Amino acid sequence: MTNTPVAAYEPPYYAAIFTSVRTEQDSGYAETGERMQELVQDMPGFLGYESARVPGGIGITVAYFRDEASIRGWRLHAEHAAAKERGRAEWYERYTLHIAKVEHSHEWVAGGGR
Amino acid sequence: MTNTPVAAYEPPYYAAIFTSVRTEQDSGYAETGERMQELVQDMPGFLGYESARVPGGIGITVAYFRDEASIRGWRLHAEHAAAKERGRAEWYERYTLHIAKVEHSHEWVAGGGR
Repeated sequence: MTNTPVAAYEPPYYAAIFTSVRTEQDSGYAETGERMQELVQDMPGFLGYESARVPGGIGITVAYFRDEASIRGWRLHAEHAAAKERGRAEWYERYTLHIAKVEHSHEWVAGGGR
Repeated sequence: MTNTPVAAYEPPYYAAIFTSVRTEQDSGYAETGERMQELVQDMPGFLGYESARVPGGIGITVAYFRDEASIRGWRLHAEHAAAKERGRAEWYERYTLHIAKVEHSHEWVAGGGR
């Protein structure tokens, strides 16, 4: 879970939208999630990530990357690939992944910049 | 809030990723959200929408559309525009919007199709 929207970077950049429904198995889930957050932050081209989940419902995680090469680097990361495999075996009931090229973005802050 | 991931449609299609932090003002928020959900479903090219919010933290809503024309139609919808204005005045502390063209997608379901 994160608490601040990722900034509106200068397009183009990439968004990986991962939407999931969890199983009831929690063993290792939080630890693995924290480890993935650590790892992704060291990936070249990583811009930021945001995540929210409805208790008992869907979760949405969006990770932003500078370009296709950096998103591919993360997809092929061995520890990440192992976590995905465990996710399918234990933690997820279903998920959808959309890989998208951001063409426009903007951000707005109340009061113009608090 | 929604309970099922939107399907992985055949690319290309568009995603509008709206990430926000709320104020503490709730008046009219839920009703307006429900009204927007009704309206967007009637927009030509609308594919689906998913939403999750961390209590006291960020919310992520992703709406999917077939093409740029349909996303523009929704942006210019008068009642939606009025809701956004009220959102900035009352309901949102900050938000970021990313408009992105989905190039790849896939979905996975435990057991292969329950």
